[in-house]
Amino acid sequence: MAQPVTAIDIEAANPALAARLMIRAGEFTGHTAGLAPGYVQGNLCILSADYAAEFAEYCRNNPKPCPLLAAGAAGDPHLPTLAEDLDIRADLPRYRVFRDGRLVDQPTDIGRWWRDDLVSFVLGCSFSFETALLEDGIPLRHIENGTNVAMYKTNIDTVQAGRFQGKMVVSMRPLKPADAIRATQITTRFPRVHGAPVHLGLPQLIGVEDIEAPFAGDSPAMRADEIPVFWACGVTPQVAIEAARPPLCITHSPGSMMITDLLNSRLALF
Amino acid sequence: MAQPVTAIDIEAANPALAARLMIRAGEFTGHTAGLAPGYVQGNLCILSADYAAEFAEYCRNNPKPCPLLAAGAAGDPHLPTLAEDLDIRADLPRYRVFRDGRLVDQPTDIGRWWRDDLVSFVLGCSFSFETALLEDGIPLRHIENGTNVAMYKTNIDTVQAGRFQGKMVVSMRPLKPADAIRATQITTRFPRVHGAPVHLGLPQLIGVEDIEAPFAGDSPAMRADEIPVFWACGVTPQVAIEAARPPLCITHSPGSMMITDLLNSRLALF
Repeated sequence: MAQPVTAIDIEAANPALAARLMIRAGEFTGHTAGLAPGYVQGNLCILSADYAAEFAEYCRNNPKPCPLLAAGAAGDPHLPTLAEDLDIRADLPRYRVFRDGRLVDQPTDIGRWWRDDLVSFVLGCSFSFETALLEDGIPLRHIENGTNVAMYKTNIDTVQAGRFQGKMVVSMRPLKPADAIRATQITTRFPRVHGAPVHLGLPQLIGVEDIEAPFAGDSPAMRADEIPVFWACGVTPQVAIEAARPPLCITHSPGSMMITDLLNSRLALF
Repeated sequence: MAQPVTAIDIEAANPALAARLMIRAGEFTGHTAGLAPGYVQGNLCILSADYAAEFAEYCRNNPKPCPLLAAGAAGDPHLPTLAEDLDIRADLPRYRVFRDGRLVDQPTDIGRWWRDDLVSFVLGCSFSFETALLEDGIPLRHIENGTNVAMYKTNIDTVQAGRFQGKMVVSMRPLKPADAIRATQITTRFPRVHGAPVHLGLPQLIGVEDIEAPFAGDSPAMRADEIPVFWACGVTPQVAIEAARPPLCITHSPGSMMITDLLNSRLALF
């Protein structure tokens, strides 16, 4: 006699699908860190079609801060290259809705905001390379301390595309020199999730005057035997979108990411 | 009518062979930098068989400072994996002969020192990765200035093998942060010629107190927008050999290397 498929079966077969089903059903509205370990989580950005072409170009121009994993067709809430069943309107635990650059809603479902001209973009996120670093035995201070990674606005200009422009935002992880070298090797293998660092040592050269006073996130609590290692950060496109002030923009809520069926390890070049 | 093969034909077909033939004939006794561009040049170390097994183990234990490209059989002056015609007794412009650790001869040919129990070791050299860096547009100060690369004795212990032991010697190249990241990526591809850096930034952590006062080579003339990037150096095995004081040891004369038929690019992992 055939057994019914249970949530436990799905969890075992595809933990990413299990997480999405739970989120889609409204049973989980929190942060996704630690959910479906090993699977790629992405940043979401939804724009109307009249902004979407420029934003796609901005991502192409700036692949390190804006590594595009997938983009949908106008009005299509599905992104089958990320997951066959994916419904971008319900599969994130919480969203942020901006009108003219102003936060107007933080729903757990965007069905009521969806329109036929909306285009979804999912960008790679540092969760993927942090997993690879941790699996290699490289300690990450902000994870050990349960704090947010330190982020800084740099003096590095991104390459403009239409209404999208701005300075690059970077995340910083304090590392011992040998770990900084190893982390450079590992993240080089992951260009679709920010790739290699953009800078290390000498923060003042990229306009970071006080390393303990980040623009976002928590103070990094650097130690004397560490150097600061900077990666291009997914907050960069958020800053560019804020400046462009599109009439409507929907993003993930910070920490509540899009869980895909892609394995982190499959994003590695080699 | 068949034309005789000329030196110009050989130079065109195989510049490394042409350089070896010139050196073998005693027509060139200087530094090999710039000869046969694109071909791997190696460090030479010849030891008697009773030291050779321990030295081979020392190289295996310490692949970053002692990347072994080839080792000969006892008494055999040929290393066909490096070049079919190679004769280790005559193919280097100048040698150094040490008895009980003391320099006793600097001949251009070691035929009179050759014995049936001698084993030849050829180790990778930073010339190969420096070529790759320069071809990638990364400026190298010591080459621009026509000086020797700065070298430092570190506080990093190598892994002992019998009578061979000692601290790791490193070479240092001052680089801008973005170039340090790129240089880490490039040299990672070349593990047979020292590979990725062993350290960067914070020289005092590896026992380097005064960056402008190297143990060997010239002062690096660092600039404010540069960080020091350290690679394991082929002087490390020389220091270990000096300490072991074998009855007989023959090396290349500094800068007068073994020119092989291997292309630098073919040493790259990917």
